[in-house]
Amino acid sequence: MRLRGRKGIRENLEQQQELVVLDPREYKGRWSEVFGNERPIHIELGMGKGQFISGMSAKHPNVNFIGMDMYDELIRRASEKVRAIWNAQGQEEPETVRLALGNIELIEEFFAPGELERIYLNFSDPWPKKKHWRRRLTHPRFLQKYRTLLNEEGEIHFKTDSRELFQFSLNAFAASGLQMNNISLSLHEEGNPEFNVMTEYESKFVGRGMPIYRCEVIVGDAALRRYHEDKMDQF
Amino acid sequence: MRLRGRKGIRENLEQQQELVVLDPREYKGRWSEVFGNERPIHIELGMGKGQFISGMSAKHPNVNFIGMDMYDELIRRASEKVRAIWNAQGQEEPETVRLALGNIELIEEFFAPGELERIYLNFSDPWPKKKHWRRRLTHPRFLQKYRTLLNEEGEIHFKTDSRELFQFSLNAFAASGLQMNNISLSLHEEGNPEFNVMTEYESKFVGRGMPIYRCEVIVGDAALRRYHEDKMDQF
Repeated sequence: MRLRGRKGIRENLEQQQELVVLDPREYKGRWSEVFGNERPIHIELGMGKGQFISGMSAKHPNVNFIGMDMYDELIRRASEKVRAIWNAQGQEEPETVRLALGNIELIEEFFAPGELERIYLNFSDPWPKKKHWRRRLTHPRFLQKYRTLLNEEGEIHFKTDSRELFQFSLNAFAASGLQMNNISLSLHEEGNPEFNVMTEYESKFVGRGMPIYRCEVIVGDAALRRYHEDKMDQF
Repeated sequence: MRLRGRKGIRENLEQQQELVVLDPREYKGRWSEVFGNERPIHIELGMGKGQFISGMSAKHPNVNFIGMDMYDELIRRASEKVRAIWNAQGQEEPETVRLALGNIELIEEFFAPGELERIYLNFSDPWPKKKHWRRRLTHPRFLQKYRTLLNEEGEIHFKTDSRELFQFSLNAFAASGLQMNNISLSLHEEGNPEFNVMTEYESKFVGRGMPIYRCEVIVGDAALRRYHEDKMDQF
């Protein structure tokens, strides 16, 4: 039964080739062709059930979004969510979204250097045991990969409910010599900020009054130049 | 009565010239003469009642400590605390401590460039109103001054119970291009760390189970070189 169920999911995904990418390796260096346009590409690593990527794609039609996760079932659920949101807007095909099945460990096999403009890390697995810290998506070894893949406008936007993961991540950003910006220890202090699309987890945690931590990391040269021009405005 | 009380305090301080510095301007560029040795100088800006500076000076006899505050009464209380701790150790004179009366706004009038090795900011006033943010001791305008005054081993060690001040400070360190290290969002998570001497405030807040935030900032070139050699050990 379980096998048949899985097979059913895979068949379902195979029938959604306009939305689902089962082997992102195929498109390394030519994602613009996949989307059929030259708009910037924003990716969510570990998209889960797809609430964030659906909301973001509906909100920012001039950006190409990729939601990546490693489980067929999550891709299927996210595909339903994306379609529901796009259909509600009267658009039949979600042209600026792709859901890609992939293990983030292999991210350099999926994208060419400079092919991405923004990486979203939302409520990534906190991997609490020290021996698993290497798997944290903000571990310096991942940050190094992201740096290569981001373009001159490149940024990483990270949020989590895990105090421990956030602390680790701030130290990882610092040790990696990355420029942090808009560090927040309580994202929802004055309500949900206008820019912020909530994930499934986030809605739940915020409902319980738990703090959400957030930080932006500015990677690309052009983005850094703009940051340095404006950074003192916040003080 | 009030005037007489104040006068009494000032007289008391004037009689403690071996410990209390009433006009730190006099010693700019020659604090080593004040201490009579070439040991590094660590200063606490806003020392309050002196629990931290007393404990630190007793713990680190090879460091010269300066506790600075702008109120006579705090200098007097701190002087009693320092003497009590030093006498308990069987030492008559607290040779490696000075308590200096001074407004931190004027810190560049008190010290020459490179004269300090470490600056401690403990539970600084959070100045919650936006129009007062300039007074926060981690505001970029202060960070710029600190940078000048610190030597090649220079570091800033900052701790606070204020989430808002900590968030502001992390962004100020980032915007000032400063190297952060050992960022902690819950300093007492596993008990009081061995290195940590608690302030009066801290003892109270920790007793109530409130989180203490902490961050080190590495400023001096030699300290930065060491940091870059070892920084990946933490991951």
